Amino acid sequence: MEPLLPCVSSSPLVDHHCHGVLGVDLDRDGFESNLTEASSVSPLGTSLFDSSLGLAVRRWCAPLLDLPSLAPAVEYLARRRSLGAAEVNRAFLSASGISTFLVDAGAWPEGFQAPSVFTGSRELSVLRLERLAEDVVPDGASGFPARAREALDSTTAVAAKSIAAYRVGLELDPARPSDREVVSAADEWLTSGSSRFADEVISRFLVWEALDRGLPVQFHVGYGDADLSLHKCDPLLLTDLLRATAPLGVPIMLLHNYPFHRHAGYLAQVFPHVFVDVGLATHSVAHQAGRVLGEALEIVPFGKFLFSTDAFALAELYYLGALFFRRALSDFLSTGLRRHAFGLSDAERIAHLIGWQNAHRAYRLE
Amino acid sequence: MEPLLPCVSSSPLVDHHCHGVLGVDLDRDGFESNLTEASSVSPLGTSLFDSSLGLAVRRWCAPLLDLPSLAPAVEYLARRRSLGAAEVNRAFLSASGISTFLVDAGAWPEGFQAPSVFTGSRELSVLRLERLAEDVVPDGASGFPARAREALDSTTAVAAKSIAAYRVGLELDPARPSDREVVSAADEWLTSGSSRFADEVISRFLVWEALDRGLPVQFHVGYGDADLSLHKCDPLLLTDLLRATAPLGVPIMLLHNYPFHRHAGYLAQVFPHVFVDVGLATHSVAHQAGRVLGEALEIVPFGKFLFSTDAFALAELYYLGALFFRRALSDFLSTGLRRHAFGLSDAERIAHLIGWQNAHRAYRLE
Amino acid sequence: MEPLLPCVSSSPLVDHHCHGVLGVDLDRDGFESNLTEASSVSPLGTSLFDSSLGLAVRRWCAPLLDLPSLAPAVEYLARRRSLGAAEVNRAFLSASGISTFLVDAGAWPEGFQAPSVFTGSRELSVLRLERLAEDVVPDGASGFPARAREALDSTTAVAAKSIAAYRVGLELDPARPSDREVVSAADEWLTSGSSRFADEVISRFLVWEALDRGLPVQFHVGYGDADLSLHKCDPLLLTDLLRATAPLGVPIMLLHNYPFHRHAGYLAQVFPHVFVDVGLATHSVAHQAGRVLGEALEIVPFGKFLFSTDAFALAELYYLGALFFRRALSDFLSTGLRRHAFGLSDAERIAHLIGWQNAHRAYRLE
Repeated sequence: MEPLLPCVSSSPLVDHHCHGVLGVDLDRDGFESNLTEASSVSPLGTSLFDSSLGLAVRRWCAPLLDLPSLAPAVEYLARRRSLGAAEVNRAFLSASGISTFLVDAGAWPEGFQAPSVFTGSRELSVLRLERLAEDVVPDGASGFPARAREALDSTTAVAAKSIAAYRVGLELDPARPSDREVVSAADEWLTSGSSRFADEVISRFLVWEALDRGLPVQFHVGYGDADLSLHKCDPLLLTDLLRATAPLGVPIMLLHNYPFHRHAGYLAQVFPHVFVDVGLATHSVAHQAGRVLGEALEIVPFGKFLFSTDAFALAELYYLGALFFRRALSDFLSTGLRRHAFGLSDAERIAHLIGWQNAHRAYRLE
Repeated sequence: MEPLLPCVSSSPLVDHHCHGVLGVDLDRDGFESNLTEASSVSPLGTSLFDSSLGLAVRRWCAPLLDLPSLAPAVEYLARRRSLGAAEVNRAFLSASGISTFLVDAGAWPEGFQAPSVFTGSRELSVLRLERLAEDVVPDGASGFPARAREALDSTTAVAAKSIAAYRVGLELDPARPSDREVVSAADEWLTSGSSRFADEVISRFLVWEALDRGLPVQFHVGYGDADLSLHKCDPLLLTDLLRATAPLGVPIMLLHNYPFHRHAGYLAQVFPHVFVDVGLATHSVAHQAGRVLGEALEIVPFGKFLFSTDAFALAELYYLGALFFRRALSDFLSTGLRRHAFGLSDAERIAHLIGWQNAHRAYRLE
Repeated sequence: MEPLLPCVSSSPLVDHHCHGVLGVDLDRDGFESNLTEASSVSPLGTSLFDSSLGLAVRRWCAPLLDLPSLAPAVEYLARRRSLGAAEVNRAFLSASGISTFLVDAGAWPEGFQAPSVFTGSRELSVLRLERLAEDVVPDGASGFPARAREALDSTTAVAAKSIAAYRVGLELDPARPSDREVVSAADEWLTSGSSRFADEVISRFLVWEALDRGLPVQFHVGYGDADLSLHKCDPLLLTDLLRATAPLGVPIMLLHNYPFHRHAGYLAQVFPHVFVDVGLATHSVAHQAGRVLGEALEIVPFGKFLFSTDAFALAELYYLGALFFRRALSDFLSTGLRRHAFGLSDAERIAHLIGWQNAHRAYRLE
């Protein structure tokens, strides 16, 4: 393997979308069920260590726990438990070299901790819109729009996050809903007795209200667990909403996007406020991340692409997300240099734009 | 070219989905119309030998007929005819090195023969669900559900196959249909006077009944001839049905999948009973199979991927399907080894899982 | 970089779909807004020179203006203005080496000129169907079908072009509309007061009438500016219309297709009258064109693939379109030769089929 380009290895990394890390030890089933988007190990398949990501854990993470590279899964997990979650989390998070975390605290199971606890990095929060709605709806439907707006007014988050993909899919109507429609939707939700909503009007309302306040909105797009229907998570389904919200001039971030990352690149090119990444996919495809990143960078302007890990629960995922991102970006730039497609100063500019400058500009981090 | 990795060249291959081979000699038009998914040669295009697959026949198949590599098409076809179908079939089928064939006998034109006739390999049968329905429907609509169930109860096939993709597309309702609905659909079919049905209720009924009996169900997905509408054959359209059938714990195999093979990989990762392959695409893309296989293996667990040729009529297709599959798998593994993504024992494990072990486990072949 | 294969560098190139070139000098905003499909530079992104295409302009175009390779954008633009549009256009268009242009004059802003003015190449015209309709509709709805037919009867164009993708998307009903339906649609259009129509019946009528006269029809497919909704521009949405028009035996050309180029390849394989290209995408993805072309050529018969630049306004785009097409085709063929997938005479045949012979046959250029 070629060494990383110095401009890639030395660039700060802003992880503009990740989650909390689990501060509790895990048995094998617990580890595997957090590894991929499968909710558990299938008796019809084999271990989830039989995957690109599983191999990457054994290959790249084992040495950080003082095991030989490619140590067997059983030894890896035993070592992980003997060190304890705190030490494991510290090892991987500090090795990730991530300088700033934007953390979505919307799903925060018992035992979760902030990633910055283990690194001293800067940490900023992302407000999960569905969580906000679920927090303020119990006080009644009629006051729901006002309470949601108050919560948005007082947030210290640097961005909002929508998981409309999981609730209703991404084919959102572009129109801003009226308060009457929102109250009626909230009323239906309360009547249903469910703590969770799956309502297109409410999803849409929250997105518009966040953008009105200048809050960049992140959308889960593409690949995720079996709770979503992937064909309803193609970023192109957001086209009408993107067209309608462009005049606001507030960034919209399309997260993950795999396997629709080329679709996302198109949206980032033609809509002035759209940014994209290939989070989650980077560590999932592991040693093949170079091809996925290359595809994602075909037509996207380099001023519109971001880095994220989408790491959740396992500290390994922050580390591997950053490692495979750097490797893929370095390979993309090295290939371009070898083909004389651009020069070293261009490569350096691209590495810094994507590594941190685009995030700083879009989220106004300074 | 690098030699194949020994673990790939020495692994047995279970072809978990193929068809019969034509035991009759062919003229040029007959050969070309069986070569690709085009039903005939277009006067607006050129010969179908002007394709990746056509070149592969001249490059790889000609030497097995004692012709120079890349012999002209006209010489190849003359030599093929002079040897006779029996000798040609024996040559290619034995050279394929396929140890077990799972044969879909649902389309079996005059002159077709079982591939194992020419090799002595193990052969197992796959029950075409549409064929079963067409066999039992003439005795009347009211008894149709019962007769279909009896036929399934008495089958010796190791799997069932659905070509819903060709009849109604893959957006199947997830609900198990009631017998009343099935009888009504059968009645409409009989009234139509057609021997062929295109009815979503019947397709769905047959799939549920096969799964109820523990019979793995293969679905044609993606790429095929002009009779299907490819946008209705995206595997993601099966999402609701996959979600509904997961609790049965019976494998569902998504065949071919090209150009939606990444979508299929996602389904195989998140649904415990889903397996995938790139069947037909392997020989169709020929020397570019490495990229397609690489994409297909990005996020799929290695315990959920299978080998198939989908060969039909031409003996060359079994041979080329196996040849390009081995080449692509070897290149995938060699690249991983070169990048230190995994070790040799990992590569060996993956080669055997994909080559035969996954098929043995999913179809309970031992 | 390897040199181009001689068969690629020496083959004539027929650009079967391009537009006019701007004969007027441009400031930086004017240049950037014509560079990609973004309508303007976003204050949230950076310069559009931060893109694969922007880098390609600095890398490959600067030397033709006697600047060092990778000269800064500001110097490039200053030099461009000091030379003047006429000299710049002559430099790039003659360097493109394109021997024949098929020019869509449907969008022809003030200051546009024919590309052949600068090269002396052969130039043939493509009739924009929407423009034809907009020209003849003002004389009244009842005579609209007859006037549209007369205009088609008298055209000297070698092909027609449909931008249904931009107006109504590509999910066109396959049925030939009746004159009554067309008159009613024209009437609605005239009543609306708009000079532009977005009517599926009229789009469809025009396509059928062009095909009836033996005029090949080009469809904009896939990638374009923010006026279209990309998910409505998947070529698979044309399937029913392609099935219905196949018996006419008149070519249909699917242009661009990115990121659905594999879908287009399938259509070109199974429908006898369908041809495809990757037009616009070639210069847009620039140094990564090899992968996109490789994917596009996976299953398409080599007798059904064409070259086009889709260049519009900037002379650089004809040059870069031809340059990256030749580079990508040469790399595709060299890789095949290196893998012994075919021989040199096969490579030569493919280069000439795709470079010009397919266009000559499909458009009857001799």
